[in-house]
Amino acid sequence: MNHRLTELLDIKYPIIQGGMVWCCGWQLASAVSNNGGLGLLGAGSMTPETLREHIKKCRAATVQPFGVNVPLLYKDVDGIMKVVMEEKVPIVVSSAGNPKTWTKQLQEEGITVLHVVSSSKFAQKAEEAGVNAIIAEGFEAGGHNGREETTTMALIPQVRSAVSLPLVAAGGIATGSQMLAALCLGADGVQIGTLFALSEESSASPEFKQICTNLKEGDTQLVLKKLSPTRLIKNAFCEKIKEAEDRGAAAEELLEIVGKGRTKLGIFEGNMTDGELEIGQVASLIRKIEPVENIIRRLIDEYNLTLGRLKPVL
Amino acid sequence: MNHRLTELLDIKYPIIQGGMVWCCGWQLASAVSNNGGLGLLGAGSMTPETLREHIKKCRAATVQPFGVNVPLLYKDVDGIMKVVMEEKVPIVVSSAGNPKTWTKQLQEEGITVLHVVSSSKFAQKAEEAGVNAIIAEGFEAGGHNGREETTTMALIPQVRSAVSLPLVAAGGIATGSQMLAALCLGADGVQIGTLFALSEESSASPEFKQICTNLKEGDTQLVLKKLSPTRLIKNAFCEKIKEAEDRGAAAEELLEIVGKGRTKLGIFEGNMTDGELEIGQVASLIRKIEPVENIIRRLIDEYNLTLGRLKPVL
Repeated sequence: MNHRLTELLDIKYPIIQGGMVWCCGWQLASAVSNNGGLGLLGAGSMTPETLREHIKKCRAATVQPFGVNVPLLYKDVDGIMKVVMEEKVPIVVSSAGNPKTWTKQLQEEGITVLHVVSSSKFAQKAEEAGVNAIIAEGFEAGGHNGREETTTMALIPQVRSAVSLPLVAAGGIATGSQMLAALCLGADGVQIGTLFALSEESSASPEFKQICTNLKEGDTQLVLKKLSPTRLIKNAFCEKIKEAEDRGAAAEELLEIVGKGRTKLGIFEGNMTDGELEIGQVASLIRKIEPVENIIRRLIDEYNLTLGRLKPVL
Repeated sequence: MNHRLTELLDIKYPIIQGGMVWCCGWQLASAVSNNGGLGLLGAGSMTPETLREHIKKCRAATVQPFGVNVPLLYKDVDGIMKVVMEEKVPIVVSSAGNPKTWTKQLQEEGITVLHVVSSSKFAQKAEEAGVNAIIAEGFEAGGHNGREETTTMALIPQVRSAVSLPLVAAGGIATGSQMLAALCLGADGVQIGTLFALSEESSASPEFKQICTNLKEGDTQLVLKKLSPTRLIKNAFCEKIKEAEDRGAAAEELLEIVGKGRTKLGIFEGNMTDGELEIGQVASLIRKIEPVENIIRRLIDEYNLTLGRLKPVL
């Protein structure tokens, strides 16, 4: 529709790679940036020193812009932000927290800030906080998710009306046709998580990629609504949560079932039974693991092909 | 994209009005058909004799094709189908049940049959049953809903791959841009419920239309998952259900809370406290009650305007 997002981020295609935990090291981020999108390092599963190492390696692997995704409720967010500013990372995508806390300070260091929201209300708050662009994520997205449960189809037009900043659609986008649909809805670009989490360059375990490329529709579910709503594959761990939720278990019991380190155990270490397996609904559209170069080329080809087929209604 | 759906139904625009209970009498159905879409009478809230009366009045009000929506689990489905066949209604949209039961018999009477599904699996079963077209409805839709919770954005491309029949997208569509997005995803047309439920010609109560045009994002929720998942406005009745569900109430207790006649009480009689208020997520995009003529004209104008703005990615 326009070039606001690509100009803001200095990228070729309006495609941002989501900053999923345990998937997005320097290999994935640099591959996305080298192929015309915006790669993100996922700080949510890194210590500040690990992040520093990945930033250095990413910079060595690409001359293109890349960014860091920072969940603002992360325990050592101060340490993460310190590294981001010291290493002069050009772009930060913040999520899961108040955008007022860090936006100004990052921008004073010359960093462009995008913030992830799940509603128009939070989009307006992010705009008031002075962020440079908004990422609005629908119910179909993997992992942590909004309480409103608004889907991408319903959400994007409403956020588009509510704010004037560049807008990125996230959730439910794994093909060029879905990308075009998101632009129809008013987005200036897309954030793609699941598809890149299942790429060759993703640091997710082979077991995780294998299970995700064999899912059927309905094989993920939004659970943990009494804690923080999260979309998971319905494996044994998830069924345990669902069983507890069905009988009305309180937040404390759910916290105990979740325990610690479950996303690492599942996504990174490949324990498909006891791990917390975060992935989006569109996983059931993805049947093979490919290099980022092929993925981005296909997204653009499909986008243009679908656009060429659309006709006015007379 | 193509004219398969408009040719099948002999209509001008690829727009079907959803057959929502207590909203769709002859006034709404004939207005939609007179303005180039396909109007549906909602048999789910009619006795066979009431339906016969509405069919006669609809036929007097339009020379264009119209149809009847029949939930196949309706208690007097035999009586409803008898009236449909006797009155030679040209189109039936069946939902909530097994499409094998009625499709052949209706088609032998010259009736075109569409069936509503929430997954590719059910779409394939409907295709096997010999229906003429599929309506695939996403999680954001109002009222009764699939167990898979797949959103329109994620669902349509998968159903498109799974079946070869004409495909109609439903759920999350209340603007021409959303209609265009649905066609990007592979649909041949759209079914629109919420927007028509809130039109001037809808037989829903003024109180219902008033509350729906003042909703914010997140003001509806999919509840009753232990019975049949249903999207409702979070009014006092819905909060009572949620409270019971949060403490793990069994299906029997939920059935008792729901009781009888709640949709009529809410949607038709205007009791906004104790009624069961079924509406889609897109209600929060709709701020005024308009005649069907204006609604359809705007849908087409927005569709063409949005299409004109799309550009290839080079």
